[in-house]
Amino acid sequence: MEKQKVLINGERLKNTIEEFADFGRTENNGVTRLALSDMDLKVRKHFQSECEKLGMTVVYDDMANMYATLPGVNNDQSPVVVGSHLDSVYKGGRFDGVLGVLTGFEVVRTIVENDIKPQVPLVVANITNEEGARFEPAMMSSGVLSGRFDKATMLQSTDTEGVTFGEALDNSGFKGKEENRLTDAAAFLELHIEQGPVLESESLQIGIVEGVVGMVNYEIEVSGDSDHAGTTPMPMRKDALFATNNLITEIREKMNKLDDELVYTIGRMDVSPNIHTIIPNKVVFTLEARHQDPNTIRQVEEIVEGLHDSSGKEKCDVKTTKQWDRNTVWFDEGIVNAVERSTKNIGYSYKRMVSGAGHDAQFIATYIPSAMIFVPSVNGKSHAEDELTYWEDCENGVNVILQTVLELTVK
Amino acid sequence: MEKQKVLINGERLKNTIEEFADFGRTENNGVTRLALSDMDLKVRKHFQSECEKLGMTVVYDDMANMYATLPGVNNDQSPVVVGSHLDSVYKGGRFDGVLGVLTGFEVVRTIVENDIKPQVPLVVANITNEEGARFEPAMMSSGVLSGRFDKATMLQSTDTEGVTFGEALDNSGFKGKEENRLTDAAAFLELHIEQGPVLESESLQIGIVEGVVGMVNYEIEVSGDSDHAGTTPMPMRKDALFATNNLITEIREKMNKLDDELVYTIGRMDVSPNIHTIIPNKVVFTLEARHQDPNTIRQVEEIVEGLHDSSGKEKCDVKTTKQWDRNTVWFDEGIVNAVERSTKNIGYSYKRMVSGAGHDAQFIATYIPSAMIFVPSVNGKSHAEDELTYWEDCENGVNVILQTVLELTVK
Repeated sequence: MEKQKVLINGERLKNTIEEFADFGRTENNGVTRLALSDMDLKVRKHFQSECEKLGMTVVYDDMANMYATLPGVNNDQSPVVVGSHLDSVYKGGRFDGVLGVLTGFEVVRTIVENDIKPQVPLVVANITNEEGARFEPAMMSSGVLSGRFDKATMLQSTDTEGVTFGEALDNSGFKGKEENRLTDAAAFLELHIEQGPVLESESLQIGIVEGVVGMVNYEIEVSGDSDHAGTTPMPMRKDALFATNNLITEIREKMNKLDDELVYTIGRMDVSPNIHTIIPNKVVFTLEARHQDPNTIRQVEEIVEGLHDSSGKEKCDVKTTKQWDRNTVWFDEGIVNAVERSTKNIGYSYKRMVSGAGHDAQFIATYIPSAMIFVPSVNGKSHAEDELTYWEDCENGVNVILQTVLELTVK
Repeated sequence: MEKQKVLINGERLKNTIEEFADFGRTENNGVTRLALSDMDLKVRKHFQSECEKLGMTVVYDDMANMYATLPGVNNDQSPVVVGSHLDSVYKGGRFDGVLGVLTGFEVVRTIVENDIKPQVPLVVANITNEEGARFEPAMMSSGVLSGRFDKATMLQSTDTEGVTFGEALDNSGFKGKEENRLTDAAAFLELHIEQGPVLESESLQIGIVEGVVGMVNYEIEVSGDSDHAGTTPMPMRKDALFATNNLITEIREKMNKLDDELVYTIGRMDVSPNIHTIIPNKVVFTLEARHQDPNTIRQVEEIVEGLHDSSGKEKCDVKTTKQWDRNTVWFDEGIVNAVERSTKNIGYSYKRMVSGAGHDAQFIATYIPSAMIFVPSVNGKSHAEDELTYWEDCENGVNVILQTVLELTVK
């Protein structure tokens, strides 16, 4: 078998990535392509037409997920699927999501031009609305596919203009039948940019993703009294902002004693009434924490839920509400090992790692053997116009997926 | 002289306060009467008509300040002025400002009904736009009267609907001549609610205000990097919110070692991008500090300006900008002593204190001998619909002003 000698065409991959970035390219060389927006519909049409040129058949399911299928030798067998998402956040980058879809596309092109005959069908999937930037939540359609999200609820999700996801779907031209849903596959492979700085900082080419870490999300509300900043002596105040400062200090001291791989973030904080001459009477802030070990997440929960009585001298009330959590998802060991073998065979440097970010593959992994690989993100940036993954890293990643696909489909 | 025996009519004062509160009374028994709004123009007309019924002459100056004059025996001598403001903040209370104007009105009513002949004219003043709630800045017109604010700049101040103060003035029917401005007086007396909890907590009836404390205002900008909350290991972050947490802790530790009477507040804080899954890359917060001793304010400035290099492990940039400051204003010792004598004579409990809040009297004090008294605010509340000063405390305060006016005008 020549399967280890076949490599993708890096120059062609680069050109295709740039071609797709033209659909929604921003002034600063980023991309705005919100789910089911005009630009998203245009790139979907382009994607479909390019796939059809290669001899693939394209169908949509009821969530507008697109499946482009290259027939295999045995078309009654479960397919191997490579996919990700073509939607982006507002002013996002040229790589997040689209790279995983074009990985599948480039793999098919390479297979077709090398006249390789896969034993099973090969599907390139574009999963609708991974970002949740226009219609919340993120990973909407993989959530529906996996039964994690209720479709009827998702159809009611509304963008800032008042358009529901259901309406956007009806008007998209990409709403297909529920029977076309991805229900069964031999493997689901997703290549994604890392969106973090680890691979770059360790000078590694490939991240073999073993799973997506679990997380827990809290909203914490601190209530005091909004008195006049000039006339209220310090000991008579109930300053919600100072109480919050006490709490954040306590959170950081306690969290920092947990595992080194724990990440936790206070991303949103709203102060009321937020006027410089008035003592804040309310602060609401979020806290999210991620770690692969559920025991560590439990320790986080104990710390946060123990905050109730610890607001100190500020005499404020602290209300802690757990918003949601999700368990760590471990990818299929067989597929992960296949990916690792491919990486080693080509000779790329790599590490096994967990993903701190959420991806469609984590939902799909609940019913299809799945795995992901990461390629380095320059400065760890994503969801930003200056998001960058070097062309060579894109090429390396697609080669790993190609080798894995060949191992899984060419006996 | 019977001047120590004359007292005001508490029941009448109460009724008048409630009558004036009908101009803009809110559902929750507060008042919304923004400067030069329809409701403010209505209350001004009512005030004018009530003053004229008492035999007073009402004139306006070019800032729409209103002066109602009761003639004295010698009308070529400098008047004694009692005043404050009829405007309120949005959803403010029934006492802030209006109580000081109605103090003057009740004093005149008492003098008229007792057939007392003041030696000099007695003026009741309503100073335009003390609150700055519709048109910034606060204390706009006393600022213009005292030369602290430039009138042309003030005329350009614009409300949220795009109306300039100049336009509102032109359309008010209360724009008069510059020559009517308050330029000379024997005394300016302002009674105001304390807007703080000190008198109530010490069970005192009257606050003799010796001055208005100086203050300094900063804006502090902390800049880091907005990376993905799930994929960026803790040691690789530049978290602007955690850096801010460090800074606030440092500010509080150092400030708390300064004088006990120092008050300082972080009232406004804006976090960017303020999304729960993104590490904040920017936090902007305000810090204001007030104290009567300029040396203490200088120590505050040293602390704040020393924050530049102290953001610790978060590796963020800290930019500190001094927005503005004002020096402590000391009221006229002779007038303050006269107020204290009146308080003692009637037998009210009192303390000498400084005002942490700004008032028109502090600007007027720069060119007219001035003084203020405070009456207790329940729970220290003001600028709120539940602002409350008990009727008896209102009455006591007006009696102090009456006695002081009699001492100053009836020889």
